[in-house]
Amino acid sequence: MISIKHENVMNVAKKRGFLWSSFEIYSGVSGFVDYGPLGAVLKNNVMQKWRDFYVVGEGFYEIESPTIMPEEALKASGHVDHFTDPMAECKECMDVFRADHVVKEAIGQEVEGLENQKITEIISENEIKCPKCGGHLTHVWSYNLMFQTLIGAKGKKTGYMRPETAQGIFIPFKRLLRFFRNKLPFGVVQLGKAYRNEISPRQGVIRLREFTQAEAEIFVNPEDKTHPKFSQIKAEKLSLYSSDCQLATEEPLKVTAQEALDNKIVSSEMLIYQLYLAQKFLREIGIPDEALRFRQHLPSEMAHYAIDCWDVEVQTDNYGWVEIIGIADRTDYDLKSHSEHSSEDLRVFIEYDEPKSVKKSITKPNMSIFGPAFKGAAPELMKVLEESDAEKIQKSFQENGNFPVELDSTYEILPEHVNFEEVDEVIRGEKIFPHVIEPSFGIDRIIYSLLLHSFQEEEDRSYFKLAKDIAPVGVSVFPLLNKEGMVEMALKIKDTLRSNGFIAEYDSSGTIGRRYARSDEIGVPFAITVDHESLEDKTVTIRNRDDSKQYRIPLKKVPEIISDLLTSKKEFEGLSKEL
Amino acid sequence: MISIKHENVMNVAKKRGFLWSSFEIYSGVSGFVDYGPLGAVLKNNVMQKWRDFYVVGEGFYEIESPTIMPEEALKASGHVDHFTDPMAECKECMDVFRADHVVKEAIGQEVEGLENQKITEIISENEIKCPKCGGHLTHVWSYNLMFQTLIGAKGKKTGYMRPETAQGIFIPFKRLLRFFRNKLPFGVVQLGKAYRNEISPRQGVIRLREFTQAEAEIFVNPEDKTHPKFSQIKAEKLSLYSSDCQLATEEPLKVTAQEALDNKIVSSEMLIYQLYLAQKFLREIGIPDEALRFRQHLPSEMAHYAIDCWDVEVQTDNYGWVEIIGIADRTDYDLKSHSEHSSEDLRVFIEYDEPKSVKKSITKPNMSIFGPAFKGAAPELMKVLEESDAEKIQKSFQENGNFPVELDSTYEILPEHVNFEEVDEVIRGEKIFPHVIEPSFGIDRIIYSLLLHSFQEEEDRSYFKLAKDIAPVGVSVFPLLNKEGMVEMALKIKDTLRSNGFIAEYDSSGTIGRRYARSDEIGVPFAITVDHESLEDKTVTIRNRDDSKQYRIPLKKVPEIISDLLTSKKEFEGLSKEL
Repeated sequence: MISIKHENVMNVAKKRGFLWSSFEIYSGVSGFVDYGPLGAVLKNNVMQKWRDFYVVGEGFYEIESPTIMPEEALKASGHVDHFTDPMAECKECMDVFRADHVVKEAIGQEVEGLENQKITEIISENEIKCPKCGGHLTHVWSYNLMFQTLIGAKGKKTGYMRPETAQGIFIPFKRLLRFFRNKLPFGVVQLGKAYRNEISPRQGVIRLREFTQAEAEIFVNPEDKTHPKFSQIKAEKLSLYSSDCQLATEEPLKVTAQEALDNKIVSSEMLIYQLYLAQKFLREIGIPDEALRFRQHLPSEMAHYAIDCWDVEVQTDNYGWVEIIGIADRTDYDLKSHSEHSSEDLRVFIEYDEPKSVKKSITKPNMSIFGPAFKGAAPELMKVLEESDAEKIQKSFQENGNFPVELDSTYEILPEHVNFEEVDEVIRGEKIFPHVIEPSFGIDRIIYSLLLHSFQEEEDRSYFKLAKDIAPVGVSVFPLLNKEGMVEMALKIKDTLRSNGFIAEYDSSGTIGRRYARSDEIGVPFAITVDHESLEDKTVTIRNRDDSKQYRIPLKKVPEIISDLLTSKKEFEGLSKEL
Repeated sequence: MISIKHENVMNVAKKRGFLWSSFEIYSGVSGFVDYGPLGAVLKNNVMQKWRDFYVVGEGFYEIESPTIMPEEALKASGHVDHFTDPMAECKECMDVFRADHVVKEAIGQEVEGLENQKITEIISENEIKCPKCGGHLTHVWSYNLMFQTLIGAKGKKTGYMRPETAQGIFIPFKRLLRFFRNKLPFGVVQLGKAYRNEISPRQGVIRLREFTQAEAEIFVNPEDKTHPKFSQIKAEKLSLYSSDCQLATEEPLKVTAQEALDNKIVSSEMLIYQLYLAQKFLREIGIPDEALRFRQHLPSEMAHYAIDCWDVEVQTDNYGWVEIIGIADRTDYDLKSHSEHSSEDLRVFIEYDEPKSVKKSITKPNMSIFGPAFKGAAPELMKVLEESDAEKIQKSFQENGNFPVELDSTYEILPEHVNFEEVDEVIRGEKIFPHVIEPSFGIDRIIYSLLLHSFQEEEDRSYFKLAKDIAPVGVSVFPLLNKEGMVEMALKIKDTLRSNGFIAEYDSSGTIGRRYARSDEIGVPFAITVDHESLEDKTVTIRNRDDSKQYRIPLKKVPEIISDLLTSKKEFEGLSKEL
């Protein structure tokens, strides 16, 4: 059952140019959408706002890495082996299905995460059949969700379309660390396409094969997950649907950031701060707190390397609670894994607050015997001793009675050739793999949520109540009548607003009521109308989308007033006092 | 030979975080680059400026379509069959080469566009060998440059990574036409990734396998390629390297837009306007007119369907003249082709200025005979006659003596059953395929050109002289000394500027001279320094990158002054008068 609101929203979205299914004239390919003229601007505006938050506000830096990646890199990240869905085929109609979905639909059992063999058994034991034709299903196998391709002529190198933008940040980590002058913490973000070759996507914008992510990777010292701004946000309220709540089938907790920390509901200040920031971002683009909850991953669903994961979920009438953002503490998994696979040291040197003094055994040659014993080779052997671990030498003495060194030939160093001394060594710091805190935003789902939650259905009109800095068109400009004088003045206003950087649209077709309705429908916050009076006294009316209120303002103040309103320097209500 | 300037620019670009080769820790994959923390912002700023020009300024609308496209769509566009390079393999070392490049290097002959058989003959006749090992080359074959993949489970559908963003605009043309209320002209743009699986790319950012395009498709009435703003730009100068100039080996012509039109150097106002706009855009981001020329495609290199094509080329010391933008009149090729392949009518109804009256022959049943002859079938047969072309019926009478109609059975209409009458028909307009004017920008090459042409090497410093609204970091903020008071004040200034939406960076390490140099190098336009005086009288110094001039300004005016300077409301020089 498709909900009526969902259907109304998607109809307006398609009809007015926000989004539609791609490749319609070629019968369509599921899992792909086009953002139309209004949708693309809306999406850009949301992404620009995201940059305002994360790049300008938090001081993170953006990078852009390729969407095609070589196999080695995705082998290291684990995607070649583990980015899979369990799949089964119908022996009769040959159609393929996600095995976990088929089981869920047939007997209500959640089998995500179970082994293929186990799911096959469940299908067989419960006599689950093909949901399309009732035929027998094959055994379950793992289907890799990455789009594969070949890089170079003659297909020399296997590549994949990236399954997430994050990996593009881990790979050049050494260069990024240098950019941030080798100091933690620092954040790097990437906004761009990611791909997932879904078996059979049937959920519109919610499950796309090509989608847009905005991800931040915040590299922190594992010993210090405090956040410098935590005290500023400690009283902020969050709706936390913790793993304990879920298991006890209780309602989400409404707690402050401080309470979340004190009660160990969320694992660190860093993570709580990111939950808060995500909520603030969603609120400012127009998704209200009430429509959101933070759902913690259950121990059974969390990735083995993660410490703590929270999904930001939004309420929808058609799909239930939908994950739109994931916020996780990924620990050092990715950097460690890329280090191992690439043999590059991706650790960071962390200086201690105070240098530490540690006892250390060193090996000194007993020169009166060492010199005569090794003659010309002595200097080089002394170097080897200096660089070798004293414990290793001692061990070799115990086991072999000597410590063999390969130079031009093999030299056997004997216990009497050396003395061991205890010294104090000063250590300034140590090399560690940073931990990674990752907020990962699904931009397409956010756009869908935004359209859904901003959609207003009133008696005589329906419209997207989009925030002023997010709305694709900022101002509509109308001549009351298609008359000389009015038309020119309205066109001139439109051009002036555009030259000031605002997207203004001129419309002269149909009644003024019809034009207001059309303008409201796509969420244009303000409309300027040129009427008879305008020609006489150089004033125009300005109308507010949300309450249809109008004021008359001087023509020459239009650019300033529109700029103040759209950049939120002023509120529409405030205009009355001024005029 | 790599030029010194190119090398210096690329070294700074890599060292300071503008761009570097991707996947370095996995030995790299040629043809892919990462934009680092400064490069990604620079690129975003350039793309934002492009939107200011084309979306806000020209009133075009942006859309976003998938980067993965199904085969049918690219079959229609011609890419499956023709998006190829001629390739040859060495029989000994098995390496592969672009056959045209091998011939060009060996004997200087340009063979682009020749058939594979012909290139094979040239290689054989001239005994051209493998450039790597001297071995024999195979015959030449066509290598398709698209990255191929499979969409869906079990690889049911062949797809490709799109070779250009343009096709994503043609495919939903009907929806776009409706958005623009069925009126020409209108423009639609797309910014995004495009892919080209080059055989062996060796030219860094100039030849990428994954690159970013910004393309506009302007749909116009083929009968009207005038431009409403042409009169405003007719005196603008352009450097036109026309096809005639090239064939006569003359220098490019320096002419005005009007002269280019009058002398038929460029085919239409629409096209000239786009040349002008591209030049204005490049000038404003910082590539000077002197470094540019517009090179017309020679008749031999132009696509068969195009009327006129111009490349915007930029001068580089390392690669010679490099194409960074292509501007073409593609006629109705794409829409026609997609119409044919999809069976969707992608034409536009063009209303005549005045309805036309045309003579038309119609077929009327001679009821006194028609009725009795066909009885119950008569009404349906009359409908058929009404919908059939009278000329077709007349022709059938001449050839067969009757006009057969298939209904429940076959009815033969004879000449005596009908009369033909001449009537006047009023035609309001006609359906046509629009022509397409396409400016296509290669963003990566533009970024390279921008870095190259903005790079300044002076005696004691080198720096990117980036435009204020393009520079990745807007302001550097320094405490003169690492002293209490100065540090806090500087940090506060940095935070305030960020909360006003500007990217400000704080730096306290090293001498102030070293910090200015570091800040200049990456092109930061302004630096604010907090010194001893600042603590006493709440003033700070502001320094201009380009001439190192400094003024002292009140602390509280910093946000306003920086905002005015970075948005070009004020010039640095002007500050002296004000203070």
